[in-house]
Amino acid sequence: MAGGEVVIDSFDSEVLKGNPLGDQTRREIAIYLPPKYDASRRYPAAYGIVGYTGTGRSLLGIDPLGEDLKSRLDRLIRTGRMGSMIVPLPDCFTKVGGNQYINSSATGRYDDYLRKEIIPFVESRYRVSRRGIWGKSSGGYGSIVQGMLHPDTWSALADHSGDALFEFCYIMDFPKALAAFREHGGPAKWLRWYWRQPNRRKEELYPVLNTVGMAAHYSPNPKSQELGTDFPFDLESGEWRPEVWVRWRRWDPVNMIDRYASRLRRLRLVYIDCGTKDQYQLIWGARVLHKKLDDRHIKHVYEEFDDTHSFVSYRYDVSLPLLWKALS
Amino acid sequence: MAGGEVVIDSFDSEVLKGNPLGDQTRREIAIYLPPKYDASRRYPAAYGIVGYTGTGRSLLGIDPLGEDLKSRLDRLIRTGRMGSMIVPLPDCFTKVGGNQYINSSATGRYDDYLRKEIIPFVESRYRVSRRGIWGKSSGGYGSIVQGMLHPDTWSALADHSGDALFEFCYIMDFPKALAAFREHGGPAKWLRWYWRQPNRRKEELYPVLNTVGMAAHYSPNPKSQELGTDFPFDLESGEWRPEVWVRWRRWDPVNMIDRYASRLRRLRLVYIDCGTKDQYQLIWGARVLHKKLDDRHIKHVYEEFDDTHSFVSYRYDVSLPLLWKALS
Amino acid sequence: MAGGEVVIDSFDSEVLKGNPLGDQTRREIAIYLPPKYDASRRYPAAYGIVGYTGTGRSLLGIDPLGEDLKSRLDRLIRTGRMGSMIVPLPDCFTKVGGNQYINSSATGRYDDYLRKEIIPFVESRYRVSRRGIWGKSSGGYGSIVQGMLHPDTWSALADHSGDALFEFCYIMDFPKALAAFREHGGPAKWLRWYWRQPNRRKEELYPVLNTVGMAAHYSPNPKSQELGTDFPFDLESGEWRPEVWVRWRRWDPVNMIDRYASRLRRLRLVYIDCGTKDQYQLIWGARVLHKKLDDRHIKHVYEEFDDTHSFVSYRYDVSLPLLWKALS
Amino acid sequence: MAGGEVVIDSFDSEVLKGNPLGDQTRREIAIYLPPKYDASRRYPAAYGIVGYTGTGRSLLGIDPLGEDLKSRLDRLIRTGRMGSMIVPLPDCFTKVGGNQYINSSATGRYDDYLRKEIIPFVESRYRVSRRGIWGKSSGGYGSIVQGMLHPDTWSALADHSGDALFEFCYIMDFPKALAAFREHGGPAKWLRWYWRQPNRRKEELYPVLNTVGMAAHYSPNPKSQELGTDFPFDLESGEWRPEVWVRWRRWDPVNMIDRYASRLRRLRLVYIDCGTKDQYQLIWGARVLHKKLDDRHIKHVYEEFDDTHSFVSYRYDVSLPLLWKALS
Repeated sequence: MAGGEVVIDSFDSEVLKGNPLGDQTRREIAIYLPPKYDASRRYPAAYGIVGYTGTGRSLLGIDPLGEDLKSRLDRLIRTGRMGSMIVPLPDCFTKVGGNQYINSSATGRYDDYLRKEIIPFVESRYRVSRRGIWGKSSGGYGSIVQGMLHPDTWSALADHSGDALFEFCYIMDFPKALAAFREHGGPAKWLRWYWRQPNRRKEELYPVLNTVGMAAHYSPNPKSQELGTDFPFDLESGEWRPEVWVRWRRWDPVNMIDRYASRLRRLRLVYIDCGTKDQYQLIWGARVLHKKLDDRHIKHVYEEFDDTHSFVSYRYDVSLPLLWKALS
Repeated sequence: MAGGEVVIDSFDSEVLKGNPLGDQTRREIAIYLPPKYDASRRYPAAYGIVGYTGTGRSLLGIDPLGEDLKSRLDRLIRTGRMGSMIVPLPDCFTKVGGNQYINSSATGRYDDYLRKEIIPFVESRYRVSRRGIWGKSSGGYGSIVQGMLHPDTWSALADHSGDALFEFCYIMDFPKALAAFREHGGPAKWLRWYWRQPNRRKEELYPVLNTVGMAAHYSPNPKSQELGTDFPFDLESGEWRPEVWVRWRRWDPVNMIDRYASRLRRLRLVYIDCGTKDQYQLIWGARVLHKKLDDRHIKHVYEEFDDTHSFVSYRYDVSLPLLWKALS
Repeated sequence: MAGGEVVIDSFDSEVLKGNPLGDQTRREIAIYLPPKYDASRRYPAAYGIVGYTGTGRSLLGIDPLGEDLKSRLDRLIRTGRMGSMIVPLPDCFTKVGGNQYINSSATGRYDDYLRKEIIPFVESRYRVSRRGIWGKSSGGYGSIVQGMLHPDTWSALADHSGDALFEFCYIMDFPKALAAFREHGGPAKWLRWYWRQPNRRKEELYPVLNTVGMAAHYSPNPKSQELGTDFPFDLESGEWRPEVWVRWRRWDPVNMIDRYASRLRRLRLVYIDCGTKDQYQLIWGARVLHKKLDDRHIKHVYEEFDDTHSFVSYRYDVSLPLLWKALS
Repeated sequence: MAGGEVVIDSFDSEVLKGNPLGDQTRREIAIYLPPKYDASRRYPAAYGIVGYTGTGRSLLGIDPLGEDLKSRLDRLIRTGRMGSMIVPLPDCFTKVGGNQYINSSATGRYDDYLRKEIIPFVESRYRVSRRGIWGKSSGGYGSIVQGMLHPDTWSALADHSGDALFEFCYIMDFPKALAAFREHGGPAKWLRWYWRQPNRRKEELYPVLNTVGMAAHYSPNPKSQELGTDFPFDLESGEWRPEVWVRWRRWDPVNMIDRYASRLRRLRLVYIDCGTKDQYQLIWGARVLHKKLDDRHIKHVYEEFDDTHSFVSYRYDVSLPLLWKALS
């Protein structure tokens, strides 16, 4: 079955040089090229950014009960559900477990990395007509935030089950994170301990890693001894720190949209979906986004589906063709 | 085995007349009298207020794997761990599932009921030397709040696993409550539906009932069509309403203590404990309270124990003798 | 609201003298007498036997979200849903956490206790026309087993969510029990440890207690050093012991019915129900019983309802009137 | 960082022709070749067989929080923890969700496929000195069963968290499977429905798929209309079918070892490990195996580790070097 091709390339980032977490600067980028890729043509490019704890290549893992991204793209194109499209899959993984695809003094300038290095790298090698961005979970978050911040860069976005309505999706993790921080002597020590563990996917570790990661993105503070990061609760007693929470809220898409909605109007596609049983409660964030876009008469596609947050890559069957169409 | 006696009495409340939930005003009060109760003597009285979904008499239920309150009091007195004490157990149950023991336009004036009716009723029948208040969960909350608001009324308090640090203990319920509200057409309709259910103790109902109840106590609003109550989130989309949450925070013991700590100094006993595995995350509230009392050099007893929020009545073996001693 | 009366009486059992667990022989029995009880009349009597970890009086505990048994009986009679009936509630609790209401060398002769002492005691004080037996969970099990073994004693039975199809309801607890046994040095030492715990209702303790209790009932062995009981798995390695399991299976109602079904034909009411979401998987046992009764054309009432195993006492609204009718 | 190479090859199986599930016969095999692979030398080969719901290539998926198998092998060799070794990874996935690596009329002759086709295919291309087999979960099961059945084929085995003590690891799934079968009209219809679902990794589907798969392996029956398979419970009522369960038990390693232990004596390495918190209770099976090997003085390596069944590939750091050593 003739399909497209995945090229694995890499380059050394300037933007990430000296990043505070000491994450590597030479990174791979996987790029899906459609079948019969023709270097003389221009193609739409749908940049895929992954969820927390993943990297671009995670999307390519084989699953006999499901479908890896390459097979999916091949099938969508082969069956005519969409046309040919380039799909670059950058690696933005960091030592705090992933990326929200924004600049932060505590993680690195990944917004810049994406726009100032990944895009030029891809587009110097492949001829791109229009650009879209899509992803799930943190990748969904990144997509809608990129769309709001940089409507000149992106012509379309698809936000699948993206982080939003932070009160509902993050706070429940804090008591678990706090307990772990106390046990290990604070977030910085916890993170060092974490990376020494042989199994870093134990269920009880996620809420802690996620709290570290979100704090590093939303409330960095170069003066903080704890990973250059402030936390919305006291690291000893757990007392709430409303002044830090306010900083998180500024990065919550449901609040950002109050400031940036008009920019979304310039996009050719704003796609949002979420599972009604999302175990991180992200359905509520999606509903608020949908409502606020509706209130402002901003055209968008909004879908709810009967599933959780997990193993919902079949939803790309909906978004990828829409992205292709919008970018064509 | 000769023990004390439980007298069940009742009276019709003036204070609760016309309460907004239509809860009955004639209520029972169970009063434990110690063995060989002597009407010519004065006894300390430790008023017991129960947790959410209970009533005073719930503490008297027989449990062959545990110990009901009467047996416990009998044993503590018989074995000399404490002296004779009266223990009144009022009924403050409401249609929103329980009580936080404060006045609210959405539930009734239960603070007044406690102090202006229950106490006079008890003390007109039995001679009381000093008064203490104790309870678990919402009863623990009520105890420390009563102590902060009314140090002239109470000489001692014991707060077991009491609600505190609301960000950690309540918010996680909101998405579940919101889903139920939407399904049933809002909180008022949900509550009517709830009371028509034959099984009102289904696990999935608690987060909803608790959210209704806490909102009714912390953010009542006579103008609201929804049970005379505001909610800290939009009832359709779930959008966060920070201005309502601020009102909840004013009733959070960890914040109230900033305003009322000095009053606690006047008490003969401030007792706080919590289980380190409390599934409602109340250990963190307890720790903040402990720290703030320490910071202000306010004498108190603070204990953590290795257990959850459930079936921890054995902790009364610690607090009741301390209450007795403080009140003697 | 005039209602019936609950008389708490007690007597010293001969049958239980020298019982192997050292459980007390003087035990209370609570007896519900209907309103306007008339000592010159005969009444039907529906003996209520409780589930594991309970005792007769547990059914009388106050619950503001639900309804205690006395209130329920009063209401059913007052509203004419059933006529006057005596409801004796014996105490069969044992140190292994409850009772299955059969004779066992490891617990005591509780079948005899029920029939040879409780019944005569009750019926020497109150005039009884016909006798029924009912209960939930272990009480449901006891009811149907009593009905199968002693159709001359009982004229009607109601088995609510009763233990049955042992492969589905018990085996899942064994690994947890085994782990606890190993940690504490075997079942006998575990049980001693258990009774020294202040909180004997910790969630993780139930599977262990239940395994001890069921083994004591179904596979007693006077020669065993471990509570005079054999276990269906090796207490060190966990290896399965099919020869012990066969003994359990003989006490499984779904198998007993092959031997005893014809006796059930003599009863005036065989009532079985179960929740379709029963978390102990008892719905399957109920379905097998129902099918086998159907196959043999034995008249019975069978109901499934949309609920779990917990807080389903509202189902007595169905069974108690049927019992009353059958016994009248 | 120079590492080994993964060659993806494929061939059309004779053995699997006409397999009852209609699974494809042309299958990929991934083969890891060590760095500086030298076609003129012989290498030990450690055949890796995967757990249920996986295929050989699943082990190669990228995980930024963990380590894919290729990176692990490269590292172990690079750091001198083991020498050069070939690691073939066959694809034995079937429509019932995976493989137990035995012949079954309901799935296909996968034992034969492995030994009569995979091995010759690999060894016609690469020069192999000795052969080992290893895997986790169903792959651990397959490894020890292969070792017991075919000690002439395999010189060493590593069974990680392998299925064993079937009473403890499988029965708990049956009620869930039964409920699903009833809902969909039996196992055959359920399986067809299953493969039409877009998300086949929903948590609630695993117990059903696993029950179908295990039955297809352990109690095939060409006359059965339900996937050519008998089930250990009645598909309507759930009644236990002991005669079918006996057939499962014959395939339980803890019982097989009674018949085949002596064959294991011929192997150069028998390695067994399991996590003490294995959520499928497999630790007990491992303990029985260990005890029975000890009782028979059969040399083996046995390790327990403090973890669950999930994400424990770091354990291969222990087994792979031992395999290499045994095969060298």
